[in-house]
Amino acid sequence: MNQAELQAPATGATDTRVAAAAELQDFVLQHIPLARAMQLRITDWQDDHIELVAPLAPNINDKGCAFGGSLSSVMTLAPWALLELHLRRLGIDADLFVASAEIRYRAPIFEDIRVRAELDEGQDLARFEKVLRQRGRARIGMVAVVDGANGPACIQHASYAARLRT
Amino acid sequence: MNQAELQAPATGATDTRVAAAAELQDFVLQHIPLARAMQLRITDWQDDHIELVAPLAPNINDKGCAFGGSLSSVMTLAPWALLELHLRRLGIDADLFVASAEIRYRAPIFEDIRVRAELDEGQDLARFEKVLRQRGRARIGMVAVVDGANGPACIQHASYAARLRT
Repeated sequence: MNQAELQAPATGATDTRVAAAAELQDFVLQHIPLARAMQLRITDWQDDHIELVAPLAPNINDKGCAFGGSLSSVMTLAPWALLELHLRRLGIDADLFVASAEIRYRAPIFEDIRVRAELDEGQDLARFEKVLRQRGRARIGMVAVVDGANGPACIQHASYAARLRT
Repeated sequence: MNQAELQAPATGATDTRVAAAAELQDFVLQHIPLARAMQLRITDWQDDHIELVAPLAPNINDKGCAFGGSLSSVMTLAPWALLELHLRRLGIDADLFVASAEIRYRAPIFEDIRVRAELDEGQDLARFEKVLRQRGRARIGMVAVVDGANGPACIQHASYAARLRT
């Protein structure tokens, strides 16, 4: 993570948060070659949302705008990263993966891909954690949005599944 | 395209088909950096379906199986390639892009990603062509499937939009 991109750390808790996000970014870039090819970065992480950025150049298509595969990749990774950071902070050791997704590509994107992910409407992170601890598995609905020049250009609603490692 | 992977060309028509698919593969690898990073190849193209392969190594994730972003990328590109080849063969100059998609990730894939794309149920390529010529734009539903060790592991139903270039 380029720490300079984050809000300036002011407290010890923020320092810890920045370090955790930086550690996850390193992990992703090390273990997922395509994330490396996309030059993906985590640029913000708060309790309820995360922001990832992928520059346009390595993610361009034949029409000079963002490649649909790059868009779906960052929209798949961002919610995963938010949930992964949350589980790591809780000390929960779980496999976390996308189970299903619905994507609307509304407009082409001619700039760097900036995705914001958060819980989908009606979803509850505390309940997700409780079910995961009690039953060993849980699902949660997430939404990821990439803004274009005129508002939301790509929207993904997706379901993520977690399973405790035993 | 590695022509050796295709069914052995027997007729002039097949030669033309192999050359057209090879040309599109070159175009994709040249203009879409992420397709290059994925080492994507077109391994079969017939009137009603296409097959693309991406080796596991550049598309792996932290769990040792295929990265969800790679899966959605190949499932997005394969139907596009089938339609693009069809339009090129008809001499229709159109922009073609994915408009929406629904993906189910049913099982992890621990081998090379092999995706087969074809028209979705009830869709008609001749009608798509007719509407596109008449109205300047048209949509068509496509399905893409990646098989795993025990049958279909990933399935994407997606809508593609075409617009005549003027």
